[in-house]
This record gives sequence, C-alpha cells and structure tokens, in this order.
Amino acid sequence: MTLGFSSLLNARWSEADSLLCVGLDPDQPKIPRQYHDFEDGIVRFCVDIIDATAEFACAFKPQIAYFAAIGAECDLTAICEYIRNTYPTIPIILDAKRGDIGDTAKQYAREAFERYGAHAVTVNPYMGGDTIEPYLSHKDGAAIVLCRTSNAGSGEFQSQLINGEPLYQRVARTAATEWSKMGDVSLVVGATYPAELAEVRAIVGDMALLVPGVGAQGGDPTQVVANGANSHGTGLIVNSSRAILYADATHPGEAAARVARETRDALRAAR
Amino acid sequence: MTLGFSSLLNARWSEADSLLCVGLDPDQPKIPRQYHDFEDGIVRFCVDIIDATAEFACAFKPQIAYFAAIGAECDLTAICEYIRNTYPTIPIILDAKRGDIGDTAKQYAREAFERYGAHAVTVNPYMGGDTIEPYLSHKDGAAIVLCRTSNAGSGEFQSQLINGEPLYQRVARTAATEWSKMGDVSLVVGATYPAELAEVRAIVGDMALLVPGVGAQGGDPTQVVANGANSHGTGLIVNSSRAILYADATHPGEAAARVARETRDALRAAR
Repeated sequence: MTLGFSSLLNARWSEADSLLCVGLDPDQPKIPRQYHDFEDGIVRFCVDIIDATAEFACAFKPQIAYFAAIGAECDLTAICEYIRNTYPTIPIILDAKRGDIGDTAKQYAREAFERYGAHAVTVNPYMGGDTIEPYLSHKDGAAIVLCRTSNAGSGEFQSQLINGEPLYQRVARTAATEWSKMGDVSLVVGATYPAELAEVRAIVGDMALLVPGVGAQGGDPTQVVANGANSHGTGLIVNSSRAILYADATHPGEAAARVARETRDALRAAR
Repeated sequence: MTLGFSSLLNARWSEADSLLCVGLDPDQPKIPRQYHDFEDGIVRFCVDIIDATAEFACAFKPQIAYFAAIGAECDLTAICEYIRNTYPTIPIILDAKRGDIGDTAKQYAREAFERYGAHAVTVNPYMGGDTIEPYLSHKDGAAIVLCRTSNAGSGEFQSQLINGEPLYQRVARTAATEWSKMGDVSLVVGATYPAELAEVRAIVGDMALLVPGVGAQGGDPTQVVANGANSHGTGLIVNSSRAILYADATHPGEAAARVARETRDALRAAR
C-alpha cells in the first residue's frame, strides 16, 4: 500500500523529529568539480547529498527547472527513484509550480505522480480552484499551492487587498475551506515574510506549510517556527537548498550533513 | 540573424493574413490509430498537422504538458526543430505557464529559448514582476503572461477587485506600463470572456494577445476579433488546438487543414 503525502509527512515529523526539507537544485556550474567527469554527475551529486542529509530531513524537494533547462529529466527520474527505494518513508515534493486548465493539469499530475513518483507537487493558484482539483483528485496525489512566496516582488499581486484581505490570505482561506475538502492540500509561505506566516497559520489551522527562504535566502529558522508551527509543534516543511547543497565544494556530503543537522537543530530548538 | 517573437509575429500577421495559432496538444489516446505503430508517432502526427496547417497559421503553440506527462521531451525538441527549419517565419510559443523565483526562472528561460528554441513562453504572474523579468531579459526571449484565462473557474482570483479594478486588469496594466519596458511581453486572455477581452484591449494599446478558447472550448471567433483586435486589425493570436488536431481520425491532415482554413477565414471575415 502506498501512503499519501500527509501520512508520510506526519510519520516523518514524529520519527525523524525534523521540520527540515532538503531542496535539490543541482545548478551545473555550482556542482563540485569532482562530479563533472561523470556522465551521471548530477545524479551522483544528488545521491551523495541525499545520503548525507536523509536522517535530518522530513522531505526532499527536487526543483524540476534545473533538470528541464538541460534536458536531464532522466536524471530527475533516477533521483526520485533512488529516494523512493532507499528512503521510502521520506516524502518527495516535486517543485514544478504547475498551473493550467483541467485537461492539461491532468497531464501535469501524471508527470508528477506517475512519471516521477512524487508524493506532492507545487501548484500556482492564479487560474483558480478548477485548475488545482486535478492534482487533488489524482490517486495518491497532493498539491502544495503557492500562497505567499519568498521572492522580493511577491507582494506585487499577492498582497493586494480584496475586500480588505490580501490576495494571499484569500488563497489560504480558500485552501482551508474548499480545496481541503477535495484532497491533500498544503500551502507555500516564504520564510522571508514571517508576519505573513503567522497570519496564514491563523487561517489554515493545522495544515502543512512549505516554507522556502531559510538558508541562502536569509529567512530565520527561529522566527519561522515561532510564527508558523501548528498546534502540534509541527506543520512546517522548512526548505533549504543552496546552503546545504553547496556548503563545501571539497567535501560536499560531509558539509551538507553538517548544515542540514545544524538547520534541523535550529528548527528543533525553536519549538 | 534571429528575429524576436514580436517581429516574426508582425511579419506573419501581414504575410499570411492570419490571426490563427495552431495549438499542438498531442494527447496520446486521441492521436489517430495509424500513428500508434511508430516509435515517433507523436512527432509524425504533429508534423503532419504542421504541414497541413502552416499556410493558415500565424504561430504554432506546443503544450509541454502532453510531452512531460509521458517523458517525450525529445519529441517536443524534434517538433520545434522541424518548425524552425521548415517554417522559419512562423513563431513558436511554448505553452508551459512557468512561474518561479528569479534564479529558477532563468533555468526555465533556458529551457524554453535554448533547449526548445521557442520564440515565446507563457508565464504565470502570481509571483510578481521579478519572476517575469528573466524571460524578458533573456536574449531573443519573450513572455506571454496569463491575464484572464479561458477556464470556467478563472474568475476565482483573477476577477477579484483591487481598489475597484479586477486583478486581471491590474496584471494587464502592469504589463503595459512596466513589463513592456523590460522586453517583449504579451498577455493571455481567453476567448470565453469576450467582454474582458475588450477591457484588456483598452488597457494595453496594440500589445499582442494570445487568445485560447475558440474551437473545442466554445469561444466565438467573430466576437474575439470584434473585441480584441488592435488598431491595425491584428494584435491577436487566436489559438485552436483540439478542434484542428482531432478533426478527423481517418484523414487527420486534410481535416486539420480544412478546420484551420475555416477558422482563419472566420477570423479574417470578422476584421
């Protein structure tokens, strides 16, 4: 039997006692030189990072853009397969930020859940709930919907007021009241906006929140936990990518393990 | 020398006297049986449609989801290459609805413009202008930003009022006043909302609008032209996918040519 995203995540939060998600963004020029000689250098690099950080991680989050840019979808397949086979209790979030009309969304759901075997996929809400439904109704599917993103310009539309309520809060409220009835839904809220994180938490109850922006983007783990944890002291998937992946070019695995442990510990201490 | 998207499009509007964009959504179960025996059946099918409809088209728009779902990126590459080599005056729009933070958006821009050789890519505005800029600043890049989409639930967020102005109009205004300064930007406005099409046209001047939703989705070509054409009687990239691709399973090319010609003529007559 396959466990769905939320079940896996809940079990992992409690067993690994970690809120850390390790983001896999294999940017070719940043990958340490020792991997460049191998045809499957990207896979070897990611597998080394995965092995080094698995014990500290509640989830892995490969970013598909880094594979799509260079035609390396087969590497992404290999990496997802490796995680599923070697660490079957750790959920995989495919960071793809998909968003399209129903018929097309079904194709993207196939891509995420069948082709790559991801447990959840990130999705953009701009086109409305009927474009999110196909991910939620897919067998064993789960959607993590963009709410308040971590980039500097994220407020340009997300913070605009609709009847006195910012758009991102409207998205959060719709997720909590409507989309959650359709299936396994979570939200993305950036660590770089801690006040907004608290506001979203107040709207969505215990729902899981994927929080990018700690590490290289500068978000503070303590504030994230203080503002974002749910009533069980969990509910957070706090992602760090570059700070872990590129911690040290000479000993990448060792350095990744150290940074992942430190980040997990910082998140743990803040609970 | 490579011409950019808008230059190609303007030349094509005038030379082919057509506002029709042929959408390439090769949905495996719908592809006529005679192609199923070939390893490269999807490519053969798309090439037959392309050859049959090129004279009636101002653009081709492959939808990446149909390739991504089944791991057929190499087919998409072959199809884009075929269009560029055989019909170099017809621009290619990669329909991918990408949207991510700056560093990641750069990877998606590489995917669209370098890997696939597309002239423009569709992009989601939810994350703000800093996530659209990488497509516009990419050499020979162009972005077609979602504004008012053709799906039934598109109003859920897009029609919400911000200071009395619907979100999609705010997106249109930002595109016309800010993003257009950064590069080659157009908008997506669905044929299924003709009144909104007129409102967007009033905001954006002569900017190109990609209009999905005629054909299988039921949008009316006459209304689209009446409400959406710019001051030159062009400015529209009116997409039809399924109605052309799957017009007749026995003679797909012949039937595609007929429907494409009829749709082009209907759009032409309405000018």
